[in-house]
Amino acid sequence: MKQVHDLQSLAARQEIQDVLVAYCAHLDRMDLPALGALFTPTCRVIYADDPRFTAEGRDDLVRSLARMWRWQRTAHHISNVLIRVGPDGQATSESSVMAWHEAPGGDTATVFGRYLDEFQLTPEGWKIAVRRMEMNGADAGFKVPLPQARREPPPEGWTIEEWQDLG
Amino acid sequence: MKQVHDLQSLAARQEIQDVLVAYCAHLDRMDLPALGALFTPTCRVIYADDPRFTAEGRDDLVRSLARMWRWQRTAHHISNVLIRVGPDGQATSESSVMAWHEAPGGDTATVFGRYLDEFQLTPEGWKIAVRRMEMNGADAGFKVPLPQARREPPPEGWTIEEWQDLG
Amino acid sequence: MKQVHDLQSLAARQEIQDVLVAYCAHLDRMDLPALGALFTPTCRVIYADDPRFTAEGRDDLVRSLARMWRWQRTAHHISNVLIRVGPDGQATSESSVMAWHEAPGGDTATVFGRYLDEFQLTPEGWKIAVRRMEMNGADAGFKVPLPQARREPPPEGWTIEEWQDLG
Repeated sequence: MKQVHDLQSLAARQEIQDVLVAYCAHLDRMDLPALGALFTPTCRVIYADDPRFTAEGRDDLVRSLARMWRWQRTAHHISNVLIRVGPDGQATSESSVMAWHEAPGGDTATVFGRYLDEFQLTPEGWKIAVRRMEMNGADAGFKVPLPQARREPPPEGWTIEEWQDLG
Repeated sequence: MKQVHDLQSLAARQEIQDVLVAYCAHLDRMDLPALGALFTPTCRVIYADDPRFTAEGRDDLVRSLARMWRWQRTAHHISNVLIRVGPDGQATSESSVMAWHEAPGGDTATVFGRYLDEFQLTPEGWKIAVRRMEMNGADAGFKVPLPQARREPPPEGWTIEEWQDLG
Repeated sequence: MKQVHDLQSLAARQEIQDVLVAYCAHLDRMDLPALGALFTPTCRVIYADDPRFTAEGRDDLVRSLARMWRWQRTAHHISNVLIRVGPDGQATSESSVMAWHEAPGGDTATVFGRYLDEFQLTPEGWKIAVRRMEMNGADAGFKVPLPQARREPPPEGWTIEEWQDLG
């Protein structure tokens, strides 16, 4: 966890966080050209293993995200942003997203997701080169088969009975 | 998206973010004098076009926010903060808020809102000079007529049928 | 709200925020050794007054958090982070958390909580020395008796009737 911070790495973190935030804003607005410009031209984006939820390259990503119009409204809220800036214009980030979706009939679907990203510094600023997604959980309305995030199992001998009256 | 950051602009962003956070904390506590002090004396605040949801000046804002006592509990969580610091002590910010409200009977109302703010640097620090609000969506319990955020329509020829089996 | 920021205090805030984020990530993964390492060995953690929700020291904390395995999935999303860095390696922070929990049967419980923390700078970085928790609210599924956050009462003469048609 301990890191030395200089002005340059603090600024890089700020710029990368701005990209993560812009992704949410552009997606909720369905401004797909602006969203695409946050990624490298050769980006790989894997929301789920199902090939309909993967994209190879910026153009493919923009084309495939047309699926989001099947919702009449969405709200993507980023939190838990953790960025590691490496040498030579590379960085990684993990972040959490609460993504709310409303279908035309009014039904909603909410997922508690995680973005796992690799960033590259380009002449046009920091861009997402690789994005994978997983989720900690979702409500019953959310059906997209995002991979479930890893969670450690309880140690041997742990039983739920001991804890069940905690509420 | 590319920006040059110096220490002064990074510090300004931190201070502005602190104001956005303090607004939520003071509102959930209903500490309205402390909330008012985050705004300029001549601020304009437009939560919705309905004149009952607008305020002209800090005193009017504090007076009008007494309406929030119609909820017995609230929780305002800020995310997606994007700040642009301009020259001459001006800045703008966009942010998202998940605002949960609980009525005395226990009914709840949740909105996925957006704050669109103009900040001014004063001798007492950065203050909100203009705040407008809009929303990406809300659950059925939320009735305040916040303006709906702009969303691009699908291109001609797009049909939901192609995407409906995605979940 | 007005503060002078130098590079050292901005970096300290970033490092402390990283600890707050890592807590959520480790808790949702149930990586309790990694979670414990975010606290000082002699930390005090008081989620609720009930002694089953308090811990004295890192080892006790790790042992007691085994209770979180009674949920099959959780998602902790931090926001509203406000950090004050003091002299001599001390800092305090307040933050909000939206914590979603899913029981093995599929029932869910969501709380809108607040972490009130004291940090210490150690040779291994910033560590949480004291954590208290409270909540602004929760849905009906959440039963843990977190203390309710303070909220100012309305002034004398305020009546809900005046505001009830606002929605």
